[in-house]
Amino acid sequence: MNPLARALPAASDTATTLLDRYQRVRRASEALCAPLTVEDYVIQSMADVSPPKWHLAHVTWFFEAFILKPFLKGYQTPNPAYDYLFNSYYETHGKPFPRAARGHLSRPGVDDVYRFRAAVDAAMAELLSAPPAEHAAEIARRLELGLHHEQQHQELLLMDIKHILAQNPLHPVYRADLVKGAAAPVAPLGWESHPGGVRHVGHGGEGFAFDCETPVHRQFVDDFQLADRLITNGEYLAFIEDNGYGRSDLWLSDGAAAIRSLGWQAPLYWQKLDGVWHHFTLGGLTPVDPAAPVCHLSFYEADAYASWAGARLPTEAEWETVAGRQPIQGNFVEQDHLQPVAGEGQGMRQLFGDVWEWTGSAFRPYPGFKPLPGSLGEYNGKFMSGQMVLRGGCCATPQDHVRATYRNFFYPTMRWQFSGLRLAREV
Amino acid sequence: MNPLARALPAASDTATTLLDRYQRVRRASEALCAPLTVEDYVIQSMADVSPPKWHLAHVTWFFEAFILKPFLKGYQTPNPAYDYLFNSYYETHGKPFPRAARGHLSRPGVDDVYRFRAAVDAAMAELLSAPPAEHAAEIARRLELGLHHEQQHQELLLMDIKHILAQNPLHPVYRADLVKGAAAPVAPLGWESHPGGVRHVGHGGEGFAFDCETPVHRQFVDDFQLADRLITNGEYLAFIEDNGYGRSDLWLSDGAAAIRSLGWQAPLYWQKLDGVWHHFTLGGLTPVDPAAPVCHLSFYEADAYASWAGARLPTEAEWETVAGRQPIQGNFVEQDHLQPVAGEGQGMRQLFGDVWEWTGSAFRPYPGFKPLPGSLGEYNGKFMSGQMVLRGGCCATPQDHVRATYRNFFYPTMRWQFSGLRLAREV
Amino acid sequence: MNPLARALPAASDTATTLLDRYQRVRRASEALCAPLTVEDYVIQSMADVSPPKWHLAHVTWFFEAFILKPFLKGYQTPNPAYDYLFNSYYETHGKPFPRAARGHLSRPGVDDVYRFRAAVDAAMAELLSAPPAEHAAEIARRLELGLHHEQQHQELLLMDIKHILAQNPLHPVYRADLVKGAAAPVAPLGWESHPGGVRHVGHGGEGFAFDCETPVHRQFVDDFQLADRLITNGEYLAFIEDNGYGRSDLWLSDGAAAIRSLGWQAPLYWQKLDGVWHHFTLGGLTPVDPAAPVCHLSFYEADAYASWAGARLPTEAEWETVAGRQPIQGNFVEQDHLQPVAGEGQGMRQLFGDVWEWTGSAFRPYPGFKPLPGSLGEYNGKFMSGQMVLRGGCCATPQDHVRATYRNFFYPTMRWQFSGLRLAREV
Amino acid sequence: MNPLARALPAASDTATTLLDRYQRVRRASEALCAPLTVEDYVIQSMADVSPPKWHLAHVTWFFEAFILKPFLKGYQTPNPAYDYLFNSYYETHGKPFPRAARGHLSRPGVDDVYRFRAAVDAAMAELLSAPPAEHAAEIARRLELGLHHEQQHQELLLMDIKHILAQNPLHPVYRADLVKGAAAPVAPLGWESHPGGVRHVGHGGEGFAFDCETPVHRQFVDDFQLADRLITNGEYLAFIEDNGYGRSDLWLSDGAAAIRSLGWQAPLYWQKLDGVWHHFTLGGLTPVDPAAPVCHLSFYEADAYASWAGARLPTEAEWETVAGRQPIQGNFVEQDHLQPVAGEGQGMRQLFGDVWEWTGSAFRPYPGFKPLPGSLGEYNGKFMSGQMVLRGGCCATPQDHVRATYRNFFYPTMRWQFSGLRLAREV
Repeated sequence: MNPLARALPAASDTATTLLDRYQRVRRASEALCAPLTVEDYVIQSMADVSPPKWHLAHVTWFFEAFILKPFLKGYQTPNPAYDYLFNSYYETHGKPFPRAARGHLSRPGVDDVYRFRAAVDAAMAELLSAPPAEHAAEIARRLELGLHHEQQHQELLLMDIKHILAQNPLHPVYRADLVKGAAAPVAPLGWESHPGGVRHVGHGGEGFAFDCETPVHRQFVDDFQLADRLITNGEYLAFIEDNGYGRSDLWLSDGAAAIRSLGWQAPLYWQKLDGVWHHFTLGGLTPVDPAAPVCHLSFYEADAYASWAGARLPTEAEWETVAGRQPIQGNFVEQDHLQPVAGEGQGMRQLFGDVWEWTGSAFRPYPGFKPLPGSLGEYNGKFMSGQMVLRGGCCATPQDHVRATYRNFFYPTMRWQFSGLRLAREV
Repeated sequence: MNPLARALPAASDTATTLLDRYQRVRRASEALCAPLTVEDYVIQSMADVSPPKWHLAHVTWFFEAFILKPFLKGYQTPNPAYDYLFNSYYETHGKPFPRAARGHLSRPGVDDVYRFRAAVDAAMAELLSAPPAEHAAEIARRLELGLHHEQQHQELLLMDIKHILAQNPLHPVYRADLVKGAAAPVAPLGWESHPGGVRHVGHGGEGFAFDCETPVHRQFVDDFQLADRLITNGEYLAFIEDNGYGRSDLWLSDGAAAIRSLGWQAPLYWQKLDGVWHHFTLGGLTPVDPAAPVCHLSFYEADAYASWAGARLPTEAEWETVAGRQPIQGNFVEQDHLQPVAGEGQGMRQLFGDVWEWTGSAFRPYPGFKPLPGSLGEYNGKFMSGQMVLRGGCCATPQDHVRATYRNFFYPTMRWQFSGLRLAREV
Repeated sequence: MNPLARALPAASDTATTLLDRYQRVRRASEALCAPLTVEDYVIQSMADVSPPKWHLAHVTWFFEAFILKPFLKGYQTPNPAYDYLFNSYYETHGKPFPRAARGHLSRPGVDDVYRFRAAVDAAMAELLSAPPAEHAAEIARRLELGLHHEQQHQELLLMDIKHILAQNPLHPVYRADLVKGAAAPVAPLGWESHPGGVRHVGHGGEGFAFDCETPVHRQFVDDFQLADRLITNGEYLAFIEDNGYGRSDLWLSDGAAAIRSLGWQAPLYWQKLDGVWHHFTLGGLTPVDPAAPVCHLSFYEADAYASWAGARLPTEAEWETVAGRQPIQGNFVEQDHLQPVAGEGQGMRQLFGDVWEWTGSAFRPYPGFKPLPGSLGEYNGKFMSGQMVLRGGCCATPQDHVRATYRNFFYPTMRWQFSGLRLAREV
Repeated sequence: MNPLARALPAASDTATTLLDRYQRVRRASEALCAPLTVEDYVIQSMADVSPPKWHLAHVTWFFEAFILKPFLKGYQTPNPAYDYLFNSYYETHGKPFPRAARGHLSRPGVDDVYRFRAAVDAAMAELLSAPPAEHAAEIARRLELGLHHEQQHQELLLMDIKHILAQNPLHPVYRADLVKGAAAPVAPLGWESHPGGVRHVGHGGEGFAFDCETPVHRQFVDDFQLADRLITNGEYLAFIEDNGYGRSDLWLSDGAAAIRSLGWQAPLYWQKLDGVWHHFTLGGLTPVDPAAPVCHLSFYEADAYASWAGARLPTEAEWETVAGRQPIQGNFVEQDHLQPVAGEGQGMRQLFGDVWEWTGSAFRPYPGFKPLPGSLGEYNGKFMSGQMVLRGGCCATPQDHVRATYRNFFYPTMRWQFSGLRLAREV
C-alpha cells in the first residue's frame, strides 16, 4: 500500500491541527523516498531535475527561512550554509546556489539532510505548540503555503525519480508493488457542449490557493465543446503511425524546430522493443497500454495531436468552467498507481488526476493579480512568461493539493511531468 | 521628402485600381532601398535579419508562387531555383532555403533581383489587366494579402537596414535628410479611466485584416486605466539610473536570465559617449532625446520598467478598446522621421505610430480562429507560441497598413523592431 | 589565360626592382578578383572565411601599418578607422575588429577598398622610389614580408571564393575558362626508400623565409619510405566504399568525434548526384576525376585514410628531406587549373603544387625559434598550438611563394584549403 | 599514514608473485576511497571527471573483459550490462555508455561495485593460481597492463575526488591527516647546461612501458639548459601580479581565447579570501605556500609563464635526456602529502613527483610506433592528436608507476591534473 495513503489526512479531516497536518505532509515526503538507495538521492539527470536529497532539504529550508528564522526566537540553524545551498530561486532572499550544479554536491549527505529535517521539525513543533499571538495568523498563512509547497515537491520528487531511474540502462524499478490499473475497454470519445457567457474564473472562496489563481474575475467564454475523457495511448499511436511527427502542417513553428533538434518521435520514456512500444514507468519498463491516457507529452505534441484530430486544446477558462462543477476525484498519488490508468465509465471524466492537461492558455497574470509581499512574491509571479497552463493534477499529485482553479505551468518543450491532453472544439 | 509619401495612395483613395495599388506598393519598396549601396543589400547581420535583396525578392516570390503560377497561364519564372531561395517559411509549399544562411548568397545579385521584380511586375500587370473571371475574387484576395505582406517587409527592410548599418563602426548614415522631430516639452503622464464590461475584440468589419485578427469575438475587460502617452527616453533613463537592470525583483525570471547572458544595460542601439547617451538611428549616431518615446526595448525590459513604475503593460483587449475609437494618425513612415519623436498635445495620444507598444498578452489564437486554407495558412497561425503581441504600428509602418485590430508579435527577447511601451494599471 | 601568369615575375627575374615586384603582386590580387560581382566581395560564408574585399583591404593595411606609417613622412591614411577594421589579429598593434563579424560590414564598399589600395600603392611608389637610407634595409625586409603576406592572401582569396560560391544552390562558376587537366591514366603507387641519419631541417640560406621556418637545425630521421605520388580521388573512393568513415578503428578519437558531429561522409564539396560523385570547383560543379589527387581533406580524414592503407603520414622532416632535392615545379596557380589534376610520369612527383600535403607533425617552434620583433612577431608564433603542418603548396599557390622549407598549418578539422595527402611508411 | 604506502610493494620487490601484486594494487584503489561517503562516489562534476564508483568498476571491467572472459573457462559476470556501463572508450570492444552521463547512474550502487570487485578478484585469484600454460605469457602481459591501468585510475581518482569536493561551498576535507610539507626556503632557480647530440628516446629496455613510449629511437637534441627545479607559487604570483593574464603578447592565440572565454585569472582551485590567495586541496582550503611548486596549470598558462620569464618549456626529448640519469624519487602518493610541497636542496631536483611537467611537445607517435593488437590498441594511439605531453609524475602518482620514458598527455586547456612547469632555454 502506498505510504502516502497512510500519511495524508482525509480531505474532510477538519479537526486536524496545524501541527498534525505539518507532520503528516512531512512524513509523506519521506515515505516517497523510502524506496531509494543513498545513491539515488544524489543524481541530477538534467538541469530541470533536482536530486531527491535537494528536494527534501529545500522544502525544509522553506520553513526555516520563512517561518523559523523570523518567528521562532532563538532558533539556530544546523548549518548557515544551507541558506545558500537550498534556496531555489528567491533572489531577493539571497543569491541561490546555481541550479544546474545541484547534482555536483555530495555534501551534505542524505543523513545530514534527514538530520536537518528533524531539527526543523522539532523547532516547528515548538513554534506551533505555542505560536506568538501577534504572529499567529501570519505563521498559519506561511505554514499553509509551506505545506502546499512541500506537496508540490512531492510530485516533483516522483517526476525526478522517474527521470533519474529512466536514464539507467538497467531499468531500475522504483516500486514493484504499485497498484495495477483495471484492463478496461475505453468508451469512444464523446463531446459535451457548453454555452458561452461571462464566467467567473480564479479562486475567490475560502481555503488555500496560490497567488496566481487570484483574484476571481470575469471572462467571456464562447460556446464550446469539451471531450468527455482524456486522449489515450492508442489514439496517440494512431497519430504517430499517420506520420504525425513528420507533418509540418500540424505543428507550431517552434514545435517543429524542437522535435527536429531533439529527435523526438514519440512521448518521453517510450521505446520500441522488438516492434512493441514500451515505456519506462515507476514500476519498471512495461508495454504501453492503449487504453490508458497518453502521458509525458510536451505542449507542442499535445497541440499537434489536437490539430491532427481536427480539434484544439481547451483554454483554461473553458476547462475551469467545466471542472468547477465536478468532484475532485480521480487517479491521484493515493491510488498508488503512479501512472495514468484506463478510465472506466461514461460522461465527463478524468478531469482530475491521471495527467495534467495542457491548455491553450499562456501562463500570464489574471487581471488584478498581486504577488505575495516580500520574497514569497517570487513564488509564481516571475515565471509568468513563456510557459503554458496545465490543469487538473495527475497520478503523482496529492488529492488534497489540487483544485479546479489550480494553475500548473511548464515550458512548451517540457515533458517529464505527467502531462497529457483533452480535446476541445468550437460548437 | 520621404519617397514613400509619394509612392503610397492616400488612405481615402478608393478609386485606385488594384493594379495601381500593386504598383504603388511595389515602387515604395524600391524607394526604401534607393539609399543603399550594392554591398548593403547583401548583409545578414544576425539570423533574424534578412539581406535587403532577399526581402525584395521574397515579396516578389510571394506574388509569383501564390498568384502567377496558379492563375497566369503560360507564366514562366525567370529562374526555377528562386522558388527555393525565396520561400521564407512555407513548409507545405516546399523546403525553404535555411534562414540563417540568407547572408551567404551573393547570387542572384541585386540587378538580378530587380530583374526578377520587373518580370513579375510585368506578369502581374498582364494578369490584373484581364483577370480570369472565375478566379478574379481569389486573385484579389491574394493580391490584397500580397500587398500587405510587402508592406510588412517594408517595415522589416527599415528594421534590418538599421541593424545592418548599426554593426558598422563607421556609423553609416542611411539618410541624412530625415525630417527632424519638434523639440517639444512633454506633458506629465496622465491616466484615462475605462469602465469594464464585455467588449468586442478583433476584426469583423469590411476591409482587409490578417487571419490572426479574426474572428471578432467578445472578451470581458475589467475596469482599467491607460496612460495617455508613451514612455519617454527620459523616463526610461530614470529607470536605468535607479539600477533598474540590476534589481531582480523587477524582472520576469526569463528576462533576468536574458539580460544577464546578453549583457544588456540599456535599449538596443544605445551607447554612452563621453558620459552622454547616444543611439544609432537611420539618420546616424545622435544624442538620445529625453522627450522622444523610448524605443528598441524587449518585452522583458518593457515589463520590468512597468513594474518599476508601479504599473503594468496593457492587455491587447484593453489597448484595442481604447484605440478603436481613435483616428489612425501618428508618426508613420510617411512622416519621414524614421524614428519616434517627442509628442505634443494632451489627451490620449501616440496610440498609432512612433513605436509598437508591447502588451501583456501572449500571441495566441482568438476563439474560433481559422487559418487561411493551403500554404497561406502558415502565414500567422504557426507562430502562435512563445511570442507577445504588440499594437499600434511605428515610425517605419505605412499608415494604411495598420489598424486598431492589428496584432504584431515578437519573441520577448527581440528588440530590433521599433518597440516601446505605454503603461496601464488597475483602477 | 590566368591573369596571374601575366602578373607575376618569373622566378628567375632577378632584375626586378622592389617597386616592380610590389606592383606585380598587387596587380595579381586584383586580377584574382576580376571575375567577382560586387556582391561576391561581401560574403563571409563561415567564420574562417573572410569577404574578398576584406582580404584586399587587409593586405593593404599591412603595408600601411608596418611600412607607410613608420617610414613615409607625412603619410595620411584615407580613413583612420581602417586601422581597426583591417587589422586581422595583431593584438599588440591594437584591438582588431571581431573576425566572425567581417561579413557584417557593407562599408567601406568595394570601390572604397580599391581606392584604399590605390592610395597605398601611390604612397608605396613614393616611398620605394626614394627610401630613406637609414631605414632602407628594414623597409626592404618588411616589403618582402608584405609581398609574401599578400601572396598568402591570394591563395586565401581563392579558397574563400570557392567556399562562398559553394554555399549557393545556383552553383555559380567563378571562371568558365580554366585550363583542363589531361585525362592521364595514373601509374600505380610506388615507394621510394630513404636512409636515416641526421638531417638539416629548416631555412638557413639566402632568400626569404617566414620566421617559423627558422632556424635551420638538425633532426634525426629514421629510415623511411615515401610514396612517389599523391593519393587520388579513385583511391579515396575505395576507402569511402569500404566504409572508411564508419570504422572507428581507423580514426583518431578526436577525428571520430568530429566526423560524427559534423556528419562528414566524403571530402568537402563532394556530393552524389544520381549515383555519381561530383564536386564543386572554381570551374563549377563537375564529376570527380578518379585520377586527380584527392583534395579538401581534413587532417583526420588524411590520417584515417593512411591507417586504412596500412601506412602513415610523413613527418615534416621526412617530407623536407625528399623535397629539398626536387625542383619547385608543379600545378600552381600559374597553370590556371585552380584544381588538382591527374599527374603524369613516373618517379617522385607532385611534391609541389596540386594539394598541400598533410604531415604527421604538429606545428610547433623549431629549436631556437625566435619570432620577429614587435607586432610582426605575432605573424606565426602565436599559432603554434593545436595545428598540423602541411607542405608543398597547391594549385592556388603562386609558384614563387613556396619552398621546400615552407610550413603551412591548419587545425585538424579544417578542409576548405586545397589539402590532400601522400603516404609514408617504415622500411 | 597513507594507506597506499602500506598497499604497494617496494619497487625492488621482485619476489612478489603476480597475484600478490594484483591484490596489493587492488587494495590500494579501495584504500583511496576509504575516506569517501557513499554520496561522494556518485558525482560527476564535469564531463572529464568520472564518479569514483565508476573508476572502481571500470578498472575491474578491464580485468574481466581482457583477461577473465578470454582466459578463465566458465567465468560468469555478475551482470552482463556492466560490459556496456564500464567500457570507457574501447569502440572496437562495443559501444561504450556515454561518458558525460556517467554521473546519471545511481545503480549499480557502491555496494554493488564492491561486490563486482570481489567477484572479479576471486576469479582472478583462481586464474592466477593456475593459469593455463598456453596463455600464461599473454595473461601476464595483460595483467601487467591492467595493473598499470588501475594505477593510472588511482591518480585519476585523486584528481576527480579533488574536483568533486572543490565544487562544494562547504569545502569538504578529503583527509585531515595528510603529511604537511616542510616550511623550506627555496633556493634561487639555477640552470644546468646540456650538450646537444643524437640521443636515444623512448623505452627500449626490460620492464613494463606503455605502447606510446616505444620504440626507443634516436632524436637529435640541440644544446639546451634546463632549470634545476620547478616553478613555485611565489614565482607564479609575480606573473599574475605583473598582469600576466592580461598581456596578449605572452599567450598562444588559442590560449588567449581560452582564458578570455573561461575567465581564468589564476590556477585552478585558487581563490582570494580577504586579499590572501588560498587554494582548495585534498586537505581542505588553505593559504597558498609561495615555496611550493605551482600546480593545476593548463599548458597555455605554463607556456605564457615561460614566455614571461624569457624562457620556454622543455621538449620531451630534452626532459628525458636529463631525467634518464636521475633516480625515481620525489613527492609521490606514498609521501602522503597529496599536494606538491616546497623542495629542499640544490642541483637538478623535483624531476619526479610533485607535479607533472608540461613539455612543449605534442603527443604524437614515435617513429615506428605500433599500437597493441586488438581493442587494447585503443589504449593510447587514438589519442595522439591535440594533446601535449607531460613528464615526471606527481604527488598523486604511485612511485612504481612512473618512469623517465613515461608520457602523460592532456589537452592544453585541461588543468584538473596536478600539472606545473619547469623552464628550459637555449644556451
